[in-house]
Amino acid sequence: MTSKNKFPFVTCHCSLVTASEMKHFLTTSDWKRAELEALIVSAQAFKRDEDKSKPLAGRSVGLIFFNPSLRTRASMQVGVYELGGNTVVLEPGGTSWTLEHRDGVVMDGDKTEHVAEFVRVLGRYCAGLGVRTFAQLKDWEDERRDPVLEAFARYAEVPVINLESAMHHPCQAMADMMTVREKLGPGRKRVLLTWAWHPKPLPMAVPNSFALAAAQMGHDLVIAHPPLYDLDDELMRDIETQTREAGASLSVTHDADEAFDGAEVVYAKSWGSKSFYGAPEKDTETRASFRGKWIVDAQKMRRTKQAIFMHCLPVRRNVIVTDEVIDSPQSVVIDEAENRLHVQKAIMQRLMQDAKGGGGT
Amino acid sequence: MTSKNKFPFVTCHCSLVTASEMKHFLTTSDWKRAELEALIVSAQAFKRDEDKSKPLAGRSVGLIFFNPSLRTRASMQVGVYELGGNTVVLEPGGTSWTLEHRDGVVMDGDKTEHVAEFVRVLGRYCAGLGVRTFAQLKDWEDERRDPVLEAFARYAEVPVINLESAMHHPCQAMADMMTVREKLGPGRKRVLLTWAWHPKPLPMAVPNSFALAAAQMGHDLVIAHPPLYDLDDELMRDIETQTREAGASLSVTHDADEAFDGAEVVYAKSWGSKSFYGAPEKDTETRASFRGKWIVDAQKMRRTKQAIFMHCLPVRRNVIVTDEVIDSPQSVVIDEAENRLHVQKAIMQRLMQDAKGGGGT
Amino acid sequence: MTSKNKFPFVTCHCSLVTASEMKHFLTTSDWKRAELEALIVSAQAFKRDEDKSKPLAGRSVGLIFFNPSLRTRASMQVGVYELGGNTVVLEPGGTSWTLEHRDGVVMDGDKTEHVAEFVRVLGRYCAGLGVRTFAQLKDWEDERRDPVLEAFARYAEVPVINLESAMHHPCQAMADMMTVREKLGPGRKRVLLTWAWHPKPLPMAVPNSFALAAAQMGHDLVIAHPPLYDLDDELMRDIETQTREAGASLSVTHDADEAFDGAEVVYAKSWGSKSFYGAPEKDTETRASFRGKWIVDAQKMRRTKQAIFMHCLPVRRNVIVTDEVIDSPQSVVIDEAENRLHVQKAIMQRLMQDAKGGGGT
Repeated sequence: MTSKNKFPFVTCHCSLVTASEMKHFLTTSDWKRAELEALIVSAQAFKRDEDKSKPLAGRSVGLIFFNPSLRTRASMQVGVYELGGNTVVLEPGGTSWTLEHRDGVVMDGDKTEHVAEFVRVLGRYCAGLGVRTFAQLKDWEDERRDPVLEAFARYAEVPVINLESAMHHPCQAMADMMTVREKLGPGRKRVLLTWAWHPKPLPMAVPNSFALAAAQMGHDLVIAHPPLYDLDDELMRDIETQTREAGASLSVTHDADEAFDGAEVVYAKSWGSKSFYGAPEKDTETRASFRGKWIVDAQKMRRTKQAIFMHCLPVRRNVIVTDEVIDSPQSVVIDEAENRLHVQKAIMQRLMQDAKGGGGT
Repeated sequence: MTSKNKFPFVTCHCSLVTASEMKHFLTTSDWKRAELEALIVSAQAFKRDEDKSKPLAGRSVGLIFFNPSLRTRASMQVGVYELGGNTVVLEPGGTSWTLEHRDGVVMDGDKTEHVAEFVRVLGRYCAGLGVRTFAQLKDWEDERRDPVLEAFARYAEVPVINLESAMHHPCQAMADMMTVREKLGPGRKRVLLTWAWHPKPLPMAVPNSFALAAAQMGHDLVIAHPPLYDLDDELMRDIETQTREAGASLSVTHDADEAFDGAEVVYAKSWGSKSFYGAPEKDTETRASFRGKWIVDAQKMRRTKQAIFMHCLPVRRNVIVTDEVIDSPQSVVIDEAENRLHVQKAIMQRLMQDAKGGGGT
Repeated sequence: MTSKNKFPFVTCHCSLVTASEMKHFLTTSDWKRAELEALIVSAQAFKRDEDKSKPLAGRSVGLIFFNPSLRTRASMQVGVYELGGNTVVLEPGGTSWTLEHRDGVVMDGDKTEHVAEFVRVLGRYCAGLGVRTFAQLKDWEDERRDPVLEAFARYAEVPVINLESAMHHPCQAMADMMTVREKLGPGRKRVLLTWAWHPKPLPMAVPNSFALAAAQMGHDLVIAHPPLYDLDDELMRDIETQTREAGASLSVTHDADEAFDGAEVVYAKSWGSKSFYGAPEKDTETRASFRGKWIVDAQKMRRTKQAIFMHCLPVRRNVIVTDEVIDSPQSVVIDEAENRLHVQKAIMQRLMQDAKGGGGT
C-alpha cells in the first residue's frame, strides 16, 4: 500500500482498500513488513496449537478455482475447517462456463456471467473468497496486470485472498518466509532463487512472490536464471527498492553454479520467459540447451553454506532437483508445504475476523 | 396438490405424498398459498438472524447435479451448513456415468445404475436430497413431464428438493416471491415476465416457476414474449385458474414495449421455444430478428411504475439487460440471489426437521 | 499380516506396518479374524446409534479418487462428518494431472508430482487418507501388485484406507460380512460368489475381497464363473489356506445353475478375465456366449435355501440380476450399501483415533 508503488494493478486495489476499509490479500506488496511478520507469528501460534480461536464459526468461505489445484485446495479447506468454518469450492474452469471481467462488454460470446454479479452474490453467502486465476501464458502485457484477480477485488464486498494469480502467489511466499525463519531463525539470510529446467514453460507467480517477499523481509537476494528468463521489470524495480531500503543486497546472475556460493537458502523454480508468451514452442526450444545445467544437484548444494532446499511443489524429481537433494536432510519441502496451512489460517483470521458473515449469520 | 391439477407429473408425486406422508419440494403447485407464505416468513426470520435453529445438526444432505451449478450449489452448501448439517455433492453429469430412470429396462446400454438403487442408497446416508436435472431441450413431450425428477421423487425415502428440473425451479421462484414482498410489501403487484433475446435457446424452468408462483401469490401477471415462445399449455391453464381464483388478472402479449406499462416488477428471462426442441439452430435463426428489440433498457423501464428489475442470474449484460438498468438502484438482482439462501433454509427446515436422518443418526 | 503370505504386495506393506507401528486398511488379509469381527461389532454399535464418539473432531480426512465414485464418496464424507471430522476430496483423475509412483524416475513426461511428496504433504493436513486407485485392466502382472496403492502406503505417515484398488475393495467386503451376519446371524453360512454377464470387462477387486473375507470369516464358499474367468492364483491359494484353517469348504465350479444349490447367500458380480487384460474386445467377444445363462434370476434363486441376494452396486438390472430378484424381499442390496457407512466409521475410528491429527490440531 505504499504510495510510490508503480504497478497499475496495485494502485487499483489500493484505492479500493482506501474506499472500503476492507483488506484483501492479493500481493505481499500491499502489506508492510511488520504486518507480514505479525502474520508469521500468528501462523506459528496456530502451528504450535496455541491459538485455538474459531473466527469462522458459523461462516463460509468460497474457494474459486479457474485451474485445478490439489495442495492449495486441501490446505484451504482444512484451514477454514480448523478456524471453525465451512468451505464452498467452485470451479468455473472445470466446465465450459467462464466469467467476463471486462466492463461495458456486450456479452454475446461464450461468457455467461460477469464477475460483477458472481462476486457480489458469493459475498452474500460467504465471509470471504479465495480465488485462483492462474496465468494463460498468452499475452504478457495483459496478464501482468492480473485483470481477473483485479476484477474480483474491485467488485467483492468481502475480503479476497489470492490463491495464485498470473503474477502473484502471496500465500506461498508467506509459507516460504515462515519456513526460512523456522529453519534458520530471524534476521537476514543469503537467499538464492534459481531457475530450473522443466520441459515446458510455467507461470511466474511463485518466483515473483518469493523474490518480492524475500526483499520485503530484508534478505540478501540472488536471482539466477538464463538470459531471456528475467522477471518483470517493474517487479524488479520494486524488489530493488525494497532491498535497498532494508540495507540488503540484490544481484542477478546467469551463472547456474556460482549463484550457489554461500547461499543459506536455495529456492528452485522453473518459469517461462515473458519473451515467449503466446509462443510456448519457442520457449521449449530455447530452454532445451539448459537441461542438465539448470538442475539443483548435490554438487551445487556443496557450494552453499549448508543451505536448506525449498520448492513450492509439485516438483519433478530428477528434472528440477535430484532425488539425492530432495531426499536429503537439507530439504524442507514438506515442512514448507505444511506451513501453507498455518499461514493461510493466520491470513484468514486477520482478514475475516471482523468482517460480516454471509447472509444468514 | 389440488385434485384438479391436470399434469401427469404432478398427479404422480401427489399420490406419492399421500402414500408416504412425506413431502417433497418439486414445484410450488404442490403447496398451498398459505404454506408458501409461511415459507417466506420463515426465510425472513433466517435472514434477520432471528431463527438460529439447527435442524440438520449431525445430518447430511445430498446434492446431485446432472448439470454444473455455481449459485445453487453455493447457496445450498452454505444453507445446509448454517442449519447445522453436512453436504455431499455428487455430479453424475460430470462423468460418462449416467442414471437409468425408466422401469423394467434391460440395462445393457451406457447407463450403469438405476435411480431405484441410487436414490434409496443415498437416503440411507442423508436426511434429504436436492437434485438438479435440467432440460436437454431435445424432446418436449418427454421433458415436460420431468421424468428424471419424477423417478427421484418416486423412489426416495427422504425429502427431495428440486434444484431446477426441465420444467420447474421452485427454489428460485420462492426467492423471487420473497424479494417482491421485501421490496414492495405484501399484497397484489403488477408483475411483468418478459422474454429477452439471448444467442441460444435456454430451458423454461425459471419462467414456468416464476409465472406459476406469481399466480399462486395473487399477483396481476403480464407475460410478454415473441410468437412461438409461449409457455406450456397446461401450465398456462393452471396459471389462469390460479389468477382467476385469486381475483387477479393475467395477460399475454407479443408487444415488447407496451408490456412494461405500469409494471411494478420487471422479471427478465430468455428461454427456448418448445416448437424448436431438438432443433436449436432453428430457434437461433428464428430469434435472430428479436435482438435489440427484446432487451430490458432504460427506455422500457421508464414506462413502468418505477418497477424493480429482477433476473435469476447468471445474466448476460447488454444482451438481456443493459448495464444502465442492472446497475441502477431499481435493480434487485443481488438481493434476489441472496434470498435463495434464506428461502432454501426455510424449505429444508420445513421438509427435514422431522424426517429421520441418515443411517448413523 | 501372517508371515507366510506369499503376495509381493502384501509382504510390502506388512513390513511397513512393522516398521512404523501404524496400521493401514489395504486388504482384510492384513487383519486377523478377531480384529475383523471386532470391526463388525463396532459398526453395529454405530448403526444402532449407540456409539456417539467423535474421534475425528477437529481433524480432516483426505479422500483421493483416481476414478469417479458416488457411493464410496458419499458414504465416506458422511462417515467422517458423523465422526466429527472434515473431508477433503481430491480427484487427480479428474484432470490431466497424474501422479508418479515409481522410485528413481526422471520425471520429464506427463506426470507432475511424485506420490512421495503428495502423500507426505496431505499427511500434514489430514489425520488419515482414503484412496481409490482402481484397475486399468491393461497389464495384469503390474496391476495385481497394486503399485499405486502400495506407493501411498509406503510413503504415508498417516493411516491409509483402500477405497478400491486394482485388486481389493476391503471396505465393501467388510460391509458384506456385516450384512451376512445381520441377516443370517453369526456362524458359518453357505456362500455363493457367482460371476454374471455384463457388456464389458470390469475390475476384480470386489470378487477378490469378498471371497477373501468370506474365507477369513469361516464361511463355506462356492465360486462360480465361466472358464477363463478364474481369480488370481495366489489369492486362491490364500483363500484355500484360510478356509482349510477355519474348517470350512471351498469349491469352484463352471456350472451357472448347480452353484446355487443350497446357498444361503448369493453374491453376484461381473468381472473381466485376467487372460484378456489389455484386450477388452477379446473379453467382450468371449463373454458374449454367457449372456442369458449367467444372470441371477428367480429360477436359480429357487435352488437356494431362501438365500439373500447381494450385490455391491451399481448394478445393471435385467443384465446382472432380474427385476424380480432384486425387488424381492430376499434382496438386501440397499442394507448392504448402508452398511458401507457404518463399517467405514468403525474402520476410521480404529485407525485414526490415536493417530496424530493434521498440522493444526
